[in-house]
Amino acid sequence: MEKTGVKIAVIGGGTGSFTLLSSLKDYTRHVSALVNMADDGGSTGQLRDELGALPPGDIRQCLVALSDSERLRDLFNYRFEGGSLEGHAFGNLFLSALEKMTGNFAEAVETAADVLNITGEVYPVTLDKVTLVMRQSDGKVTEGEFQIGHADFGDYTRPDMELRPQAALNPAAHEAILGADLVVIAPGNIYGSLAPALIVPGMSEALNATTAKKVYVCNLVTKPGQTDGFDVCDFAAEIERFGQLRLDYVLFNDAKPSQYLLDRYAKEGEYWVTYDKKKLAAAHYQAVGGHFVSNERPAASQSDPIAATRTLIRHDADAIAKQLMKLYFT
Amino acid sequence: MEKTGVKIAVIGGGTGSFTLLSSLKDYTRHVSALVNMADDGGSTGQLRDELGALPPGDIRQCLVALSDSERLRDLFNYRFEGGSLEGHAFGNLFLSALEKMTGNFAEAVETAADVLNITGEVYPVTLDKVTLVMRQSDGKVTEGEFQIGHADFGDYTRPDMELRPQAALNPAAHEAILGADLVVIAPGNIYGSLAPALIVPGMSEALNATTAKKVYVCNLVTKPGQTDGFDVCDFAAEIERFGQLRLDYVLFNDAKPSQYLLDRYAKEGEYWVTYDKKKLAAAHYQAVGGHFVSNERPAASQSDPIAATRTLIRHDADAIAKQLMKLYFT
Repeated sequence: MEKTGVKIAVIGGGTGSFTLLSSLKDYTRHVSALVNMADDGGSTGQLRDELGALPPGDIRQCLVALSDSERLRDLFNYRFEGGSLEGHAFGNLFLSALEKMTGNFAEAVETAADVLNITGEVYPVTLDKVTLVMRQSDGKVTEGEFQIGHADFGDYTRPDMELRPQAALNPAAHEAILGADLVVIAPGNIYGSLAPALIVPGMSEALNATTAKKVYVCNLVTKPGQTDGFDVCDFAAEIERFGQLRLDYVLFNDAKPSQYLLDRYAKEGEYWVTYDKKKLAAAHYQAVGGHFVSNERPAASQSDPIAATRTLIRHDADAIAKQLMKLYFT
Repeated sequence: MEKTGVKIAVIGGGTGSFTLLSSLKDYTRHVSALVNMADDGGSTGQLRDELGALPPGDIRQCLVALSDSERLRDLFNYRFEGGSLEGHAFGNLFLSALEKMTGNFAEAVETAADVLNITGEVYPVTLDKVTLVMRQSDGKVTEGEFQIGHADFGDYTRPDMELRPQAALNPAAHEAILGADLVVIAPGNIYGSLAPALIVPGMSEALNATTAKKVYVCNLVTKPGQTDGFDVCDFAAEIERFGQLRLDYVLFNDAKPSQYLLDRYAKEGEYWVTYDKKKLAAAHYQAVGGHFVSNERPAASQSDPIAATRTLIRHDADAIAKQLMKLYFT
C-alpha cells in the first residue's frame, strides 16, 4: 500500500468520531479508525446477546463515515421497522452474519470495508468480547456501556474503568498507532466511548511508543451527572488518566454557538465546556483554540435520524480536520 | 452494454435454475435470470408477512449463482442461527432492507447485483405482490406457493394456476425475452416454481413474440402427489399449457443414474422420468436426449446445506449448458 500522505489514527466510537472521520477522508487517504468495542445497547446489544457477536454498531458507523457509496451508506444505516427485525441496522446484520460465518470479526470488517469501498481502514481496538465495568470511589460498581452511559455519578465522579474478562489490543490497531503521523482522540462520551478504547491493555504502551503527535479534540458540552462543571483541562486530564499518556495537543472550541442552542441544551442539563486560559497556558500540552462548532442546523439525517437529534450542537468536523492538518504541516 | 455472445433468458426459480445459471455464466456473459415471485415459505415468507416485502429468496439464489465472489456468495446464503434472526438468509435481509429503504425492489436487486459483481442480469418476473392460487377440477382451492408445493393433488392432477390479486410482467423481463437468442425454461417444480413464472400476464405474449428458440429442460424425477407417472411429454405439455407457448426444443436425460440413487428417491415416492421415443418423435418440438444427470455425489454445500440434501439426483448443469450452446450454434 502506498503510504505517502498524512497518516492519521483516530481513536473513538460514537457520533464525534464518525463526523470527524468523514471530514478527514477528504484530506488524506490514510485514516485509520480505531473503534471502541464495549457497546452493548440497542441492535448491537441484541446481536451480542442472541448471537454472541462482537458489537458491530460503532464499527458500522465508522465504515459508513469512510465510504463514498451513498446507496450503500444508506443501506448500512437502514433500520428495519416492524416484525422480528425491528430496530436492527442492516450494517450490523452484515457484520454479524460475516462474523458468525467466518468466525473472524476482523475479516468481517475487511469484507464490509471492501463492499463499501472505504477510504482508509477501520479496526476494532480489541477482538476480545468485553464488558465495560465502572467502579466509583464509594465502591459502587456499574456494568455495561449502556448502563454506564446512562448513569448519574452523583458525588463520586472520575470513576475507575475496566474491561472484563480480558482484552488485548488488536495488533492491527497497534500497527496503525505506531505507523501514524497523528493520533487523534475523537470527541465523545468520556466514560462510555473513549475510556473503553483507551484502557484496552496494550493501548497505553502503543500510545507511548509511537512517534505520532497525540491530539485530543475536546467535547463541546458537558454530560449531566458525569462531567458537570468540567472545563477543557478536566476533559484532557481524564483522557490522559485512561490512556496513561501525555497529550501533545488539545483542540478546543473558543467560539460560542447561538443562545438558542445553548438554551435547548441547558434544558437537558448540558452546558458549554468552558476553558481557563491560564490553566491551558500552563499545561504540558499545547492547547489550540478555534471555531470548531458547526453553524449548520443539522438536517434530519435520512441515514441515521437518531444521530441527528443527538447532535444539535455539533463540531465543525471540516474545521477540525483542517486544524489537524495544520498541526502536522507547521 | 456489449451484446455480442449468446443471449440466454432463463425462466425459473428453485434449485434447477440456480445450478443451470451457474454453469451458463461460463459460456456467455448475457444470461438473464427471470425469477418466479410467488415464493412464500421460510425466511422469505416471514419477510413478506412482517415487512410487506417482495419475496427475496429465489432472487438471492439466482444472484448468488451468477456471482464470482465466493465470500459474498457465502454471505448471501448464510442463515442466522438463534435469536430473533433465526433462519433468515442474510441475502434476503439485504434485498428486503434495500427494498424498504428505496421503495423499489428492482433497484434493490440491481444494487445487490453490483455488490455481488454478477455476470448477466437477474429480473423478478413481476414487481407486483402476488399469491399463487391453485384450483383443482373438483373445485378445491389451495392458496400460497408453500402450501401448493406440499399439496397432494389426489385424483385431480393438472390443476389450474392463477396469481392474485394481479400481476404484470416486469418490463425488464419482457425485454430480456424479446432480446434473447434462447429462452430456457429451467427444470423445477412445475406447479410451485415454473407455473407462477409462466402465468404472469404478459409472459405468454412475450414468449410468442420473441424470435428466440424456446427450450424446456425436463425434470429428472417425478414429484409424489403431483406428477406421479408423468413422462417427458407430460412435463412439456404442462409447460406449454401454463406458458401458452409452443416449445422448439425439449432437453431430457436419457442416462440412468445409479440404482443406489434411484432406490433412495423411490423411498420418498420420487421416480425417474420416463420417455417414449415414438411420442417424442411425433411431438411438434424437437426432443433432445443426452447424459444430463450428474454423477457427482453432491457434497454438503457450506453455503446452502438445505439445497444439497434436496438434490441427490441432480442435473449435470454443464452438460445442459453445452447442449444449449450446441442448439444455438448448429
